[in-house]
Amino acid sequence: MSETHATPRIAAFIGLGVMGHPMAGHLTRAGWEVRVYNRTRSRAEQWCEEYGGTHHATPREAAEGAEIVLMCVGNDDDVRSVTYGADGVLAGLSEGGLLVDHTTASADLARELSVAAREHSVGFVDAPVSGGQQGAINGALTIMCGGDPQDYERAAPVLAHYGRMVKRIGENGAGQTTKMVNQICIAGLVQALSEGLHFAEQAGLDREAVIEVISKGAAGSWQMENRHATMIRDEYEHGFAVDWMRKDLDICLAEARRIEASLPVTALVDQFYADVQSMGGGRWDTSSLLKRLAR
Amino acid sequence: MSETHATPRIAAFIGLGVMGHPMAGHLTRAGWEVRVYNRTRSRAEQWCEEYGGTHHATPREAAEGAEIVLMCVGNDDDVRSVTYGADGVLAGLSEGGLLVDHTTASADLARELSVAAREHSVGFVDAPVSGGQQGAINGALTIMCGGDPQDYERAAPVLAHYGRMVKRIGENGAGQTTKMVNQICIAGLVQALSEGLHFAEQAGLDREAVIEVISKGAAGSWQMENRHATMIRDEYEHGFAVDWMRKDLDICLAEARRIEASLPVTALVDQFYADVQSMGGGRWDTSSLLKRLAR
Amino acid sequence: MSETHATPRIAAFIGLGVMGHPMAGHLTRAGWEVRVYNRTRSRAEQWCEEYGGTHHATPREAAEGAEIVLMCVGNDDDVRSVTYGADGVLAGLSEGGLLVDHTTASADLARELSVAAREHSVGFVDAPVSGGQQGAINGALTIMCGGDPQDYERAAPVLAHYGRMVKRIGENGAGQTTKMVNQICIAGLVQALSEGLHFAEQAGLDREAVIEVISKGAAGSWQMENRHATMIRDEYEHGFAVDWMRKDLDICLAEARRIEASLPVTALVDQFYADVQSMGGGRWDTSSLLKRLAR
Amino acid sequence: MSETHATPRIAAFIGLGVMGHPMAGHLTRAGWEVRVYNRTRSRAEQWCEEYGGTHHATPREAAEGAEIVLMCVGNDDDVRSVTYGADGVLAGLSEGGLLVDHTTASADLARELSVAAREHSVGFVDAPVSGGQQGAINGALTIMCGGDPQDYERAAPVLAHYGRMVKRIGENGAGQTTKMVNQICIAGLVQALSEGLHFAEQAGLDREAVIEVISKGAAGSWQMENRHATMIRDEYEHGFAVDWMRKDLDICLAEARRIEASLPVTALVDQFYADVQSMGGGRWDTSSLLKRLAR
Repeated sequence: MSETHATPRIAAFIGLGVMGHPMAGHLTRAGWEVRVYNRTRSRAEQWCEEYGGTHHATPREAAEGAEIVLMCVGNDDDVRSVTYGADGVLAGLSEGGLLVDHTTASADLARELSVAAREHSVGFVDAPVSGGQQGAINGALTIMCGGDPQDYERAAPVLAHYGRMVKRIGENGAGQTTKMVNQICIAGLVQALSEGLHFAEQAGLDREAVIEVISKGAAGSWQMENRHATMIRDEYEHGFAVDWMRKDLDICLAEARRIEASLPVTALVDQFYADVQSMGGGRWDTSSLLKRLAR
Repeated sequence: MSETHATPRIAAFIGLGVMGHPMAGHLTRAGWEVRVYNRTRSRAEQWCEEYGGTHHATPREAAEGAEIVLMCVGNDDDVRSVTYGADGVLAGLSEGGLLVDHTTASADLARELSVAAREHSVGFVDAPVSGGQQGAINGALTIMCGGDPQDYERAAPVLAHYGRMVKRIGENGAGQTTKMVNQICIAGLVQALSEGLHFAEQAGLDREAVIEVISKGAAGSWQMENRHATMIRDEYEHGFAVDWMRKDLDICLAEARRIEASLPVTALVDQFYADVQSMGGGRWDTSSLLKRLAR
Repeated sequence: MSETHATPRIAAFIGLGVMGHPMAGHLTRAGWEVRVYNRTRSRAEQWCEEYGGTHHATPREAAEGAEIVLMCVGNDDDVRSVTYGADGVLAGLSEGGLLVDHTTASADLARELSVAAREHSVGFVDAPVSGGQQGAINGALTIMCGGDPQDYERAAPVLAHYGRMVKRIGENGAGQTTKMVNQICIAGLVQALSEGLHFAEQAGLDREAVIEVISKGAAGSWQMENRHATMIRDEYEHGFAVDWMRKDLDICLAEARRIEASLPVTALVDQFYADVQSMGGGRWDTSSLLKRLAR
Repeated sequence: MSETHATPRIAAFIGLGVMGHPMAGHLTRAGWEVRVYNRTRSRAEQWCEEYGGTHHATPREAAEGAEIVLMCVGNDDDVRSVTYGADGVLAGLSEGGLLVDHTTASADLARELSVAAREHSVGFVDAPVSGGQQGAINGALTIMCGGDPQDYERAAPVLAHYGRMVKRIGENGAGQTTKMVNQICIAGLVQALSEGLHFAEQAGLDREAVIEVISKGAAGSWQMENRHATMIRDEYEHGFAVDWMRKDLDICLAEARRIEASLPVTALVDQFYADVQSMGGGRWDTSSLLKRLAR
C-alpha cells in the first residue's frame, strides 16, 4: 500500500520508544519526510542518525508543516502533555491536518482528544497497536482504530506502512476499547495456561510433550504456541512487561466500571500481577504468572 | 496407519455414547471385527445395524476373544462397573490382551486399573480424548496416553483409526493428567474470552469486527476462532456440555489437591459454571460463561 | 467531652449530606456556632432551620472566622472543588486554623491537602468515618485520623461530639488508608457471609437457626450479627449503598497498586458488586451480594 | 444439665484426638462410665490413666452395653471404618441405642449413617462441633445437630457436658451442612482480614492501632478480635490447621456441587490454602493466609 510522490509528504512522529522508533522508521523507508520529537532528546538524535529525518525541540515544532501527526507515548498524561498547550501538537498542526494516537490509553482520553481536535479543525483517530516490539520492527502490527470514516480513510494507508492488520472498529474511543478487549482476553488466558503448566509440573509430566499434544485443540492459543517454551525454561526477560500490562488492565477496569461490565477473572489476574511485581518481576513478560504459581 | 488382515482382528468396544459410537465405527471401517457392549442395549443394537458388529449382554462377553478392549463411558464408577466383577471386562479378556480406557477419569482410577490389569496379565493404557463429537465422527481426535511403552506401541495403531494426534506422555495416569491440563487451560481461557466479549458488548463495539482484528494476535485462541460467532449469537445448544466440564474440573481439582497444585482461576470458573447450571444451562456449551456475565 | 464557652467557638461545616447533616448538628448541640455550606443550597437552609446556624454562598465565606473547618463531601474532586480556588475553604480560613476532611477519599488527596494546608499555614487532619447514617445521628461514629499530633490534639475534642471512637493512626493519609483497611475487611467478609447463607438456603436449612448457632463462634462478625436478618428476608433498601462501596473499593485498589499490595478477593468482590449494579442494585446495601448469588 | 444416677450410665467414645480426648473426659467428670476406643491404642490407655474409663480392642467392644456411642474421628472413611463391619460400632450397639457422630464429615455420610442406624434400630445424630481444642477442654463447644427430634432430645443432655451451644437444625445431614456454612463463612472472612492487614503493612500503618479503631464496627469479627495479634506477630503454630480446613472445604465444595450452590470466594480461598501448604504450612492456623500474601 506504500505510495511514492515527487515531493515527499510530511509526517510528524511523537515518541520514539521501543515501539515508536521502528514505526517511524517504516515511514521514512516508505518515502515520507519524517519530523520527530522525543522527550529524551538523545533518542530523537539517534533516530535521525539511523533514518535521516529531523528532530525538533517541541511537539508543536515537529507538527508544523506535517499533514499527519502520529503519537506513541506512555500513558494518558503523556499524551496530554504532548498534545495540549503552547508547545503541543495541536498548536502546530494546520487546519485540515490529522492526528493519530497509537498510545494504549483510556477511552475517555480518546473522546477528549476527539473534541479538542475538532476545535482545532483537525481529524483524530485513536489507534492503539498490538504485536509488540517485534511486530513494530517487522511492520506487522495490528492497529485498532476509532474515528470518523473519512479520518480513518486518510490514516489507513499511512498506518499500513507498519501495520499488517489495520481496521476501523467504530467512532473515537473504539480503537482503545478494542485494545482493552484484547488485553482482557490475554490476562485470563495466560493465567489459565500458567495453571495448566504448573499442574503439569506438579503431576510430573513432560510439559513439552503435553503442549505438543494439546496445542492444536480446544485448549490451544497464541500464548500456548509462542510462550510455552520460555515458560517451561523459566525465562521471562522478554516480551510484554508486567508493569505495562498492569497499566493497561487499570485502564480496562476503570472503563469496565464506567460501562458496568463485570470482569472477575481480569480483576483477579491483575492482583496476581501485583504478586509478580512484589517478586521483582515488573519487567518480566506477562507469562511470568507461572513463576508466581511455582514459587 | 490402518492395516488390513486376512482374518479380521477382533476388538471390543464398551460404551456407545456420542463419542464411543463413531469411534467404534471407525474400527469396523478399518476392517476390525468389533464386539460391543452398551448399558442401554438399544444403542448397541442400533450401532450393530449401522456398522455390522455384534452386541453382547455383558462387558465380559464382549471382551471374550478380543485382543484389545476399548472403553468410553461416563465416569470413574462407570469404568469400575464395566471392568471389575464376574461380568466385567477383566473377566473376559485373555492373558496378554490389552485394555484401553478413553473415559475422562481420575488419575487414581488409571493407577488402580494399571494394578488390576497387571494382576490379570493384560496391558493397560489410559487414553482420554479431546476433539468432541465432531472429532470422533471425523476420526480426528487428540488422544493422550499413559502406559508402558510396549502397551502403548500396541495400542497406537488401533487408536490411529480415530485419532489424528495420538501420543504417549508417560506411565499410567499420564494420559488422564494430560487431559486435566487441557481442561485447566480451557476453563480460564473461555472465561477470559467471555469477559472480553461481554466488555465489548457493554462498550457498544461491533464484536465481529473486534474478533477479526484481534484473533490473529496475542489474544487469539482456538476458542476465539471457533466459538466467538455462536457466543455473539447467544447460541449454546452445541459443543461440550457444562455438566461434563464440571465433572472434569472436579477431577482436576481433586488431583490438584493431591499433588499440591494451586489452581485459583480454574476453581473460580468451576463455580461460575455452577451459576450456569443454576440458569438451566447444564447442557449448554462451555462457552456459555458469556451468557452468565450478560444476564 | 463537650465544652462550654462564654463566647461560642466557631466551626464551619462543608457538605450536609446524610452524614454531614447530623454531624454538623452535634456541633450546634455542643454549643458551637456553626457556619455551613452545601452545594445544593436548599439543604443548607433546611439544616439552619433545624439547628439554627448560618449558611453561606461559598465554602470560603463559610470558613471565614472559623477556627476549624470540617468537610464531608462525595469524593476527591468534590473535596478539591470546595477547598481550592478563590471560593474555596483555604481562601477563607485564617492562619493557624484547622482543616478536617471527613470524606472517604484517596490517600493521595490527603497528602496533597497536607501540603496545601501547610502553604496556607493551617493544620490538616484526614478523618474519614465509619458507622453509617445511624452512627452519625447517634454521635457514635468511628473516626480514623491522620495528621500531625498537634493538629490531631486540636481536632479530637471537636470530633468527639459525634465520634465514639476517635483515634490518630499516623501522619496525613493514615486516616484514609485505615478506612481502606476497614473497607477491604468488609468486602470479602460480606461475600463469605453471602456464600454461607446462599449455601444454607440451597441445603434447605433454617437459616435463622444456623446463624443462631454459629454467630458466637469463629465465623461470627458484625455483619453476621447485624445483617443476617435482612439478608434472609431479601431486604436491601437500607445501609451502605453498593455504589458508594464501589467508589471506596476503587480508592483501595488504586492505593494497593501504588503500594504493591495484593488484594485478590477484594478485587473479585468489587466485580461482583458490578453485577449487583447491573441488577439495578446500586443503592442497595452492601449485603446484597447474597441477592446476586441467589438470582 | 448434668445429671447424677445411682448406677452410672454408660457411654462409649470412639476417637481420642485433640478434640475427642477432652470431650470424653467431660463425660467422666459428669458421672458417666465411659468405654473408649482409639485406633492408636496408646492414646486410649493414656486417656484411661487420666480419666479412669476402660479402653477396648474394637469399636464394637467399646459400644457393647453403652446407651450412647459418640464418635469423633478424622474423615468419612474413618467414620465408616469404625461404624460398619464385624468390629464396628453398629455391631456392638444394642437396639434402641443412640449413635452420635462429632466428626466433620460429608452430608452424604450423615444420610448414609442415618439409613444404616435405622436398619440396626438405633438412633443417629450428626453433630459436628466448632470451638477448637480450647473449646473442647473448656466444655464450651458449639454443636450443630441433625436428626429426628426424639433422637436429638436424648443426645442433647449428654452433649451439654461439653457444649455451650447445642442446637438441632434439622434432619440428619443438617448438622453437617450447618458446619459447612460455618467453614464457608470463615474462609472468605479470614482472607479479607488477611488482605486488610497486608494492605495495612504495605501502607506503613501501625496495625494494632488500626485494629483497635475498626474492630468494633462493620469490619469486626471473631477472627479479627482473636487472631489479629498473632497474625501481626507472624505466629501460626496454633489454632485450626490449614490441612484440616482444606479437608472441610473439600466437603463444602462437593456438597455445593450437589445442591448447585455457587461458592466463588470459598473455592478461591481453598486454592490459596494450597499455596500455604506448598509453603510448608499445612499445620499452621487458618489465619496464615496473611503469611501467603506477605511472602
